[in-house]
Amino acid sequence: MQRATVYLAGPDVFLADARSIGEQKKAICREFGFKGLFPLDKDKAVEADPVEIFRANCALMRQADAGVFNLTPFRGPSADAGTVFELGFLSALGKPLYGYSSDSRIYRARVAAVLGPEAEREGHPCDRDGYEIENFVLSDNLMIVRAIEEAGGEIVAVEENTDDPSKLLAAVEAFRACLDVMRRRLAPVETIELSRTR
Amino acid sequence: MQRATVYLAGPDVFLADARSIGEQKKAICREFGFKGLFPLDKDKAVEADPVEIFRANCALMRQADAGVFNLTPFRGPSADAGTVFELGFLSALGKPLYGYSSDSRIYRARVAAVLGPEAEREGHPCDRDGYEIENFVLSDNLMIVRAIEEAGGEIVAVEENTDDPSKLLAAVEAFRACLDVMRRRLAPVETIELSRTR
Repeated sequence: MQRATVYLAGPDVFLADARSIGEQKKAICREFGFKGLFPLDKDKAVEADPVEIFRANCALMRQADAGVFNLTPFRGPSADAGTVFELGFLSALGKPLYGYSSDSRIYRARVAAVLGPEAEREGHPCDRDGYEIENFVLSDNLMIVRAIEEAGGEIVAVEENTDDPSKLLAAVEAFRACLDVMRRRLAPVETIELSRTR
Repeated sequence: MQRATVYLAGPDVFLADARSIGEQKKAICREFGFKGLFPLDKDKAVEADPVEIFRANCALMRQADAGVFNLTPFRGPSADAGTVFELGFLSALGKPLYGYSSDSRIYRARVAAVLGPEAEREGHPCDRDGYEIENFVLSDNLMIVRAIEEAGGEIVAVEENTDDPSKLLAAVEAFRACLDVMRRRLAPVETIELSRTR
């Protein structure tokens, strides 16, 4: 039985111990019956060139059976921009998508935490610059949350019991909880192929 | 001759005058020979429901011949998360992509402006949390910039001569300059169709 391949998107690549976090998450994938594809699984030479990094990541995404996204806020109230780009990319390809985060707050609370108290305009909450704050009781921009739910997945939030910024961003506990959900939802590849041809 | 349709992605939808900005940008599209598709061009009822908003935006994107993205930083050093999601979506569909911004700084300078002075780790710049800062002399995360360039487009930055947060975010001057580039690059739809069939 072939294991489904899962693209591991996230800002983990910006951590000091990015490679060991990648190895740890791939090990957790194996534990749950998946094969993890980590963006840093490529030649050292590729890493120095944005053209090659972009192409290699897109190739990995096209190869993956599903995507799992570390949506922990990064440098602001939303998920990392590169991660969100990849979510849009895999959403358009129609693959199963799952998310996880070490931050369980809704978007409105995250904006207030980063930008200060909100204002109001015609009944809608606004930030300090007068930009409307999405008020759907979702964890992030609606395109992010809905893309995952439309693709049959969900976003799993588990707070890390630490103040270490690296551990908060890696969100390993939430990742593990997310894979546990995926294991129950996603059938192994051969089963999927069989059910398609019947 | 049919005008090419262009999906107008951006955080403009969060402005107090979002609808009038949308009308203004669609008028500029007509001036340059394009038909603009603005995310708020849908029923009022749709706007209250994230499920319907997501589906309507995806349908508009699939319908568009090209995408033009307002990449002006939003609530942090990067572009708006919803906009970046849509960039990934249209990138996977292989459509021509263009970007514009009222912020001409590189990403590294934007991070310093939002998060304070950078640190260093093994020769790489890091932010205050120890997360590595991409150092490719690009305006934003490499996936954003490279997606646009791989799709044959470019990102046009023109600073707005104002301190008004709404005008800074709308980036109308950069939008106009971007459409001027697009007009020279993108042939009208019928011409493209003809050249394909020859």
